Amino acid sequence: MTTIGFIGTGKIGQTIAFNVLMGGYTDEAILYDIIPDLPQKFEHELRHALASRRLRTEVMGTNSLEDVSSCDVIVITAGKPRKPGMDRRNLFVENAKIIAGLARELPKRNDAIYIMVSNPVDMMASIFMKLSGKYTISTGDQVETMRLRSYIAKVLKVPVNYVGGYVGGEHGDDAVVLWSTVSIKDEPVRDKVNKEEVEKYVKDIPGDIIKVMGGTTWGPGTIIEEIVRSIVLNENKVMSIAFPHYFEDEIVHISEPVVVGSKIGPSLESLLDEKDRWHLISATKDFYTFYKESLGKLQIVV
Amino acid sequence: MTTIGFIGTGKIGQTIAFNVLMGGYTDEAILYDIIPDLPQKFEHELRHALASRRLRTEVMGTNSLEDVSSCDVIVITAGKPRKPGMDRRNLFVENAKIIAGLARELPKRNDAIYIMVSNPVDMMASIFMKLSGKYTISTGDQVETMRLRSYIAKVLKVPVNYVGGYVGGEHGDDAVVLWSTVSIKDEPVRDKVNKEEVEKYVKDIPGDIIKVMGGTTWGPGTIIEEIVRSIVLNENKVMSIAFPHYFEDEIVHISEPVVVGSKIGPSLESLLDEKDRWHLISATKDFYTFYKESLGKLQIVV
Amino acid sequence: MTTIGFIGTGKIGQTIAFNVLMGGYTDEAILYDIIPDLPQKFEHELRHALASRRLRTEVMGTNSLEDVSSCDVIVITAGKPRKPGMDRRNLFVENAKIIAGLARELPKRNDAIYIMVSNPVDMMASIFMKLSGKYTISTGDQVETMRLRSYIAKVLKVPVNYVGGYVGGEHGDDAVVLWSTVSIKDEPVRDKVNKEEVEKYVKDIPGDIIKVMGGTTWGPGTIIEEIVRSIVLNENKVMSIAFPHYFEDEIVHISEPVVVGSKIGPSLESLLDEKDRWHLISATKDFYTFYKESLGKLQIVV
Amino acid sequence: MTTIGFIGTGKIGQTIAFNVLMGGYTDEAILYDIIPDLPQKFEHELRHALASRRLRTEVMGTNSLEDVSSCDVIVITAGKPRKPGMDRRNLFVENAKIIAGLARELPKRNDAIYIMVSNPVDMMASIFMKLSGKYTISTGDQVETMRLRSYIAKVLKVPVNYVGGYVGGEHGDDAVVLWSTVSIKDEPVRDKVNKEEVEKYVKDIPGDIIKVMGGTTWGPGTIIEEIVRSIVLNENKVMSIAFPHYFEDEIVHISEPVVVGSKIGPSLESLLDEKDRWHLISATKDFYTFYKESLGKLQIVV
Repeated sequence: MTTIGFIGTGKIGQTIAFNVLMGGYTDEAILYDIIPDLPQKFEHELRHALASRRLRTEVMGTNSLEDVSSCDVIVITAGKPRKPGMDRRNLFVENAKIIAGLARELPKRNDAIYIMVSNPVDMMASIFMKLSGKYTISTGDQVETMRLRSYIAKVLKVPVNYVGGYVGGEHGDDAVVLWSTVSIKDEPVRDKVNKEEVEKYVKDIPGDIIKVMGGTTWGPGTIIEEIVRSIVLNENKVMSIAFPHYFEDEIVHISEPVVVGSKIGPSLESLLDEKDRWHLISATKDFYTFYKESLGKLQIVV
Repeated sequence: MTTIGFIGTGKIGQTIAFNVLMGGYTDEAILYDIIPDLPQKFEHELRHALASRRLRTEVMGTNSLEDVSSCDVIVITAGKPRKPGMDRRNLFVENAKIIAGLARELPKRNDAIYIMVSNPVDMMASIFMKLSGKYTISTGDQVETMRLRSYIAKVLKVPVNYVGGYVGGEHGDDAVVLWSTVSIKDEPVRDKVNKEEVEKYVKDIPGDIIKVMGGTTWGPGTIIEEIVRSIVLNENKVMSIAFPHYFEDEIVHISEPVVVGSKIGPSLESLLDEKDRWHLISATKDFYTFYKESLGKLQIVV
Repeated sequence: MTTIGFIGTGKIGQTIAFNVLMGGYTDEAILYDIIPDLPQKFEHELRHALASRRLRTEVMGTNSLEDVSSCDVIVITAGKPRKPGMDRRNLFVENAKIIAGLARELPKRNDAIYIMVSNPVDMMASIFMKLSGKYTISTGDQVETMRLRSYIAKVLKVPVNYVGGYVGGEHGDDAVVLWSTVSIKDEPVRDKVNKEEVEKYVKDIPGDIIKVMGGTTWGPGTIIEEIVRSIVLNENKVMSIAFPHYFEDEIVHISEPVVVGSKIGPSLESLLDEKDRWHLISATKDFYTFYKESLGKLQIVV
Repeated sequence: MTTIGFIGTGKIGQTIAFNVLMGGYTDEAILYDIIPDLPQKFEHELRHALASRRLRTEVMGTNSLEDVSSCDVIVITAGKPRKPGMDRRNLFVENAKIIAGLARELPKRNDAIYIMVSNPVDMMASIFMKLSGKYTISTGDQVETMRLRSYIAKVLKVPVNYVGGYVGGEHGDDAVVLWSTVSIKDEPVRDKVNKEEVEKYVKDIPGDIIKVMGGTTWGPGTIIEEIVRSIVLNENKVMSIAFPHYFEDEIVHISEPVVVGSKIGPSLESLLDEKDRWHLISATKDFYTFYKESLGKLQIVV
C-alpha cells in the first residue's frame, strides 16, 4: 500500500495533491494544513473528483500533524508563498522556522522520502535534511526544465516531446540553462534558438505569471506530480531535481539531471560540458555562502 | 481536429480547461477572458503542464472574442461567481447580461455545442439558447450527482464505483436526489442510508466548501471535464445534466439522467418512480416562473 | 476489492484479460483453463506486463474451477472457437455442454455478473442464465457496433469518435445495422454512405480476418474490455450488448442499445424507428426458434 | 506528427503494435509483412480496437516495403521466431539475411531510429547498423529486467514497483542479473532472495512459456512498448536495452542500464560493482567472437 502525505494545502499543495490522486497510483492520501477546516474541505473536493474518475483512493484532511503517519512519500508545501516582485530567498527565515518544526515532528511517525516544495526550495530541503537526518529532495529546477522545453517547442514550432535539455543550479533567478544538454530530437540545439531570449523566458515567466494570476500553480503542480510519480512507481526518469550534495561541512541541494526512482541517482554530470559544470560548481558555492549566513540568522530566531 | 473554446478563465474555467487538456483528446484549445493578460499567462501555465505530460495540444490565450473561432465545443464560465452565503439565482441579472452578449457573438464564428457553467447555470443555458438559437446544455446536477455518490460511498465504506444514482431538477438548493435511481452495485439503496442526511450533504457541501476555500473548483472542474469528454469522444455515458425541455412558451433546462455523446439524449425518465417524476415537473414549473420573471427584469436593464 | 474471473484463456480470453488488467481497475484476476499449464504460464506473461506498467494487480492461473471464487465479474470464453468458413450456430451443441457444466459450478463460489463471449454467444448466455439462474449478458453486437463505426469513419475520412450508431439483433450473420441510430457528430448519416456496402463490411469482415489470421482477437478483445470496464466502474455507457429479454417461455439474449453499468439497462429502444424495431423482433423470433430446437437436441446429448 | 513503422506483423509484432497504438501517442502507423493480406487484416483489427478507445490514429497495412516511408521510429520483428527448445543464436544466419535486406531498403525512405526485436536480437541490431549505417538499438535485456522484478515481487510479496534492478549482457541464456543494481525500495536486496533461484527463473521462464503457449507475446509486447514510448515521448527512463558499443573493429550491442529518450544514453555503468562490470565485458567478448564467426558464414550465403 502506498500512502502519500501532503503538508500544506494552499494553492500549490492542492494542485500537486489533485494531480497525484488523479494519477490513480496511491492508495491513501493524508492532507495536512494549519488552517482550520481547509484540508477537511479540500478532502471533500477531492472525493467529488475521485467519484467522477471512479478512483477509490482513501483521503483524509486534518489539522493535526499526529494524523500524518505511515507515509511512504511526504510532499511539503507549507510556508509563505512568494509575493509579486519578491525574491524566493527573502522567504528563508520565515519558512525555515516552519520547516524546522516539521523536521522535528514528521520523522516520528513516518519512514518516508521527503519532497520539498516550499521556497526557497533547495535551502528548505537542506535544512529539513540537516535537522531531520532524513533523505530529502527539492523539486528544484524540473519546473524550469519544462518551461525551457515548452518555450523552445513554441518558438521552433515543434512538438514539445522533440525538445530535450535541462536547467540546473539553484531553483529561481540563479538557475542556468545547461545548454550542453539541450537538443531537438537527437540533435544538439546549437544556434536554432536565441539563447538569451530563452534564458530570459525561463527566468522571467514565473514572475510574470505571479503578477497576473497571483501564483504559479498548473505548471509546477503538474511537473511536481511527475516527480512524485517517478518516485512512487520507480520509473527511473531523468529529471533535474535538487538532491543532496556534500559540500564543505554541509549538505546542499543543487539541481542537475539525475535518475529519479525509489532511489535518487546517479546524477548524469557526464552529459555536461565544462561550462555547464562550472555553472553548477558556482551555484553550489553561492548556495553555500547564502545558506551558512542564513543559518546563522536562523539560530538567533529559533 | 477538435477545438475547444473556454470562455472565462477564472478559477473554475481554469480547472475545467486544465483537466480537458490533460485528457489529451483535444487538438486545440482557445482560452478567452476579458481580464487583460490572464488567459495569456494561463496559456503559459498550461504549456508547462503539457510539456510535463508530453502532450502537443495547441493552446492560445486571448482577450478578443474574435479569436474564438472554429470551435467544436465551447465551455462558458464567464460571469460573477457565487460569494459565500449568496444564492445562485441572485446572480441572474448580472450574469444574464454577460451571457446575452456572448450569445450574440460566439455563433458568428463557431458551429459548436455550448456547455454552460456560469450560475445560475440552468437559466443561463436557457438564455443562451434562446438568444443564440444554438443547442446548449448546462452542466446541471452532474456535480451534485457525484457528490451524492461520493458521500454514500464514504458513509457505507464502499468503493465509489459501487454507488449509482442521480440528482435532478435545477442545479443548486432545489436539486433533488432521485432516490428511485440510487443503488449499491445492482441493488436499490433502500434504507441503507439516512436519506435526510444525504440530502443535507448534497445541498450544503458546496456552501461549506466556498466558506473555507473561496469557491468549489476541484470537484466541479473534474466532473465537468467528464461531461466534455463524453461529448467530444461520443462516449454516450448517462449523466444528470440539464438539456433543453420545451415547457409552455420557453425552453427550460432541467437535469435528469440523459445519454451524453455527440448528441444529447434520450433521457432516461423511465428509470424514475412517480415521486421523482413529480419532483422534476415541480422543478420545471418553479424554474419557469422565476425565469419568466427574471427575463422581464432583464429586458429593462438590457 | 474487485476480482474478475476469466474462464478460458485461449486467444480471445487472453486478449480480454490482458486489456482488463492493463486498465488498472481490478485488484485481482483469476485465470482458468482446462489445458494444463496454460493459465499458469499466461499468469507469468501477465506478471511481466504488469511489471512494465507498474501495476500491482494480483493474478493467479489455475486448472481447478474450485479456485475461481469470490469474483465480482466472470468473463466466459471457454469452448470451441469458430473455424474459417464455419457458422457460429454450428458450435451450439458442443459449446452448450461446456457452458452447462460451468453454469452448475461457477455460482457455487461466486456472486458475480456473468459475461458470455463463447459462441454462439447470445444463445450461450441464454443457456447459462437458464441453468444457473444468474444474471448473464452476452457481448452481443458491441463488436459489430465498433466495426460499423470504424468502417464509416474510414470511408468518410472522419475521426471515429464522430461516428455514432449501433448494430443489433443476434451477434453474427443475422446482426442488423440499426440505421435509425447511425449519425455523424449530431447529424443522421442519411445517404452519406452506401448502406449495402457498410452492411456487407460488418457481416464479412470477421470471416475475412479469421481466414488470414486464424481468429479475431485485437478487435473483440479491446471492445469487450470496454464492456467489462463500464460494468466494473459503473460508467453507464450505452452499448449494444445482448441482455435478457423474456420471450414466450424462455429468456433470450438479443442486442440493442442499452445502458451498461453495475446494472444493465434501461434499453434505448426509443431511439429506433419502426423498421429497426421490426428487425429486432424478427431477430428475437428467429433466435427463439433455433434456440428451442437446439435445446431439444441438447437434452439428448447432455 | 509521429509515424511508426512495424516491420513484421507476426504474434510479437502484433502485440507491440497494438500496445503502441493503444498508447495514443502516435499519429500514424504503417504495418508491413511479406505474408499476403496479413498486415491488411491486422489493420482492420486495429481499427476496430481504436474505435473502442476513441483514438484517431491512422493505420495502414501493406505488403510493399515502398509504403514504409517517413517513419520516425521503425520496430523490426521480421524473421523466424524461436521454436520450443531452440537457442536464439541458431536463428542467426536465416534471420541475418532478412535483416540485411531490410538494412538496404528501409533507410531509403525513412530517417528513423531503428528498434530491433528479431532474434538473436542484439546481433541483428549490430548487423542492421553495420549494413545500414543507421542508429539501431535492440530491446535487449529490458524484457529480462521486468521478468526479474516481477519474480522478486512475487517471492517477497511486495508491489512490483518496489523492486528495482537490471539484467545485462546479451539477451537470452547468457544474460546476467546485475545484482549490484537490485533493490527493494531504496535498499539493496542483499540476501532477501535466493539469487540462484532468481537467475534460474529469468533464464528459464521464456522457454517454459514457449513450450506451453507457442511463444512469448504479452510480456515482451508490453515491455517493448514501454521502450518505444520512452523514445517517442522523450521520457528519458533508465532501461536495460542494448545500444551500440564500439569493440575492436565492430559495433556490438550489449544491454546495460541506459537513459532512453530521443537520444539513447548515457549508460549508467557507474551503478555497477566490479563483478557486474566484469560480466558485461565478458558478455561483450563472447558476443564479438560468435558474431565475427557468424558474419563469416553469412558472407558465404549472402
